[in-house]
Amino acid sequence: MTIAHRALHLAARPDGDPKDSDFELRSGTLPAVQEGELRIATKFISIDPAMRVWMSEAKSYWPPVGLGDVMRASAIGEVMESKHPKFPVGMWVNGMLGVQDGLVSDGKGLRAFNPKLLPDPAWAMSIFGGTGLTAYFGLKEIGQPKAGETLVVSAASGAVGSAVVQIGKVLGMRVVGIAGGAEKCAYVTGELGADAAIDYKNEDVGKALKQHCPDGIDVYFDNVGGEILDAVLKRLRLKARIVLCGGISQYNVIGDVRGPVNYLSLISARARMEGFVIIDYLHRSDEAVAELGAWTQAGKIKSKLDLIDGLENFPTALRRVYSGANFGKQLVRL
Amino acid sequence: MTIAHRALHLAARPDGDPKDSDFELRSGTLPAVQEGELRIATKFISIDPAMRVWMSEAKSYWPPVGLGDVMRASAIGEVMESKHPKFPVGMWVNGMLGVQDGLVSDGKGLRAFNPKLLPDPAWAMSIFGGTGLTAYFGLKEIGQPKAGETLVVSAASGAVGSAVVQIGKVLGMRVVGIAGGAEKCAYVTGELGADAAIDYKNEDVGKALKQHCPDGIDVYFDNVGGEILDAVLKRLRLKARIVLCGGISQYNVIGDVRGPVNYLSLISARARMEGFVIIDYLHRSDEAVAELGAWTQAGKIKSKLDLIDGLENFPTALRRVYSGANFGKQLVRL
Repeated sequence: MTIAHRALHLAARPDGDPKDSDFELRSGTLPAVQEGELRIATKFISIDPAMRVWMSEAKSYWPPVGLGDVMRASAIGEVMESKHPKFPVGMWVNGMLGVQDGLVSDGKGLRAFNPKLLPDPAWAMSIFGGTGLTAYFGLKEIGQPKAGETLVVSAASGAVGSAVVQIGKVLGMRVVGIAGGAEKCAYVTGELGADAAIDYKNEDVGKALKQHCPDGIDVYFDNVGGEILDAVLKRLRLKARIVLCGGISQYNVIGDVRGPVNYLSLISARARMEGFVIIDYLHRSDEAVAELGAWTQAGKIKSKLDLIDGLENFPTALRRVYSGANFGKQLVRL
Repeated sequence: MTIAHRALHLAARPDGDPKDSDFELRSGTLPAVQEGELRIATKFISIDPAMRVWMSEAKSYWPPVGLGDVMRASAIGEVMESKHPKFPVGMWVNGMLGVQDGLVSDGKGLRAFNPKLLPDPAWAMSIFGGTGLTAYFGLKEIGQPKAGETLVVSAASGAVGSAVVQIGKVLGMRVVGIAGGAEKCAYVTGELGADAAIDYKNEDVGKALKQHCPDGIDVYFDNVGGEILDAVLKRLRLKARIVLCGGISQYNVIGDVRGPVNYLSLISARARMEGFVIIDYLHRSDEAVAELGAWTQAGKIKSKLDLIDGLENFPTALRRVYSGANFGKQLVRL
């Protein structure tokens, strides 16, 4: 049995926004499944802001993707063929499967899950995947939230941000979400339940923060960096915590990154800015999944997906995340 | 009895480096001492980097000094006349006495000390004053130092920095000090006992950090901000802590402050940058003074003073601190 295989390989390190020509689609066949191996058909590929970093030569928590290698990606898929005792045919698995329509794996790094327990199997890539775990541990462990405190979340309609907004509300915080455009802002206050939303495309973020956070900001969950981080730094409360989950507005900058010019506010506010990477908390996934599952069943956590079909549309999906065109967790569906 | 009085008043908010014309020297007489009051003759005035912030309209942990007001300063002096039960004539006191040769006080905010217990009364303004307490609590509370870890200290020959270097060594750390010029670097390794010194005026700080901190930096005590902070950010170890004690290189900048462009390294290193102000720890002064006193008596902590005579030379002394011309704790002696 010959199984056709298509994969997107990294062809060039991007200069600014990732281009189609930074990738090469290669077709071929998969090797036969050997003893102790399994074959997976990829179903959904997660688009994550950190991908731009993996494509570059920058030092990160993972090594750069090598030129010519299959692009790294978290994905879920179904076991189609198996000679591995732990992963029978029909099981669904989650792992760093890469941007490809299938693969033969030895099972290392794979986690099984039951898609029937989720509202949609793709939620394994959002609330119950790295996205939800990032929101959960980033807010709880680094943000140290307390009921009654004011939480500001950037990219609040995005995958991680929307989860942070909802978790913040469950924990009794006053939540202000920042998003781009009236539609996303309406979603942040309406569907997600934030107390207020700020439209960074049409409002002065500094003024709006002053209005919506009159007593200052206790926790800022930063998904974007840039000017919004600077506006927040000006309005910190004493002992505020900034969770640095990414700097998406800075990932694609050619030349100088924009450093937070108001960082000295950390001194007057005795505040903390701390970096966070979800892989440090993966060993505690069960704890998060249990709590997120209970909140989901109680209707307190929702997840919006933004699906694009077809492996060849991966670069388009990636650019949507950096431009903010996506609305909900961006996935490629195969 | 009429007591002559001279004081330096803030005449203008400085534009860049503080100028002589930003201050006005006013002469007059002190009021008579009333019941519950005392008269102090100022002996030493502390020059602190934060003074530039107090002179501006910037939000800080203290309100701006009002135009026309006596310039704020920490100082020590001797009680010359007293109708206050707690502060008899001959006692020495420490407090925010301002840039003036004397004052009549109601005693609020004053702390008495015994100058005979110190190598020099002026040490009450260095190791046993805000300077030493800043080094002690900043390193211990925010830096969370562990024996064997690598500590980098900027402005290492300066007042706070030299204390941090020595405390770091007492705590068993590997200490690398950054200072300007061969003489100061020799002092940092020789007198202060640092394991290595980097001359930022004549060396590439990034390369030198790579050489002297081959395994990365665990704790950075930042007195300066600017390019040195960025060089450090590139070489953080996992879970590193940056103590933001000031941004002296940025205080006098006209226009845009330079934000740390490498701040996203906090994410890959899961590191923390935290602001610190000594006034939060003043209620724990005794604890620090006891430990610093023991270390001083054991010869493990030294303090170098840089004295300038005369109230009218306060602006010169202040500029010396910003230009790095001072060598040791800068004081004005009256």
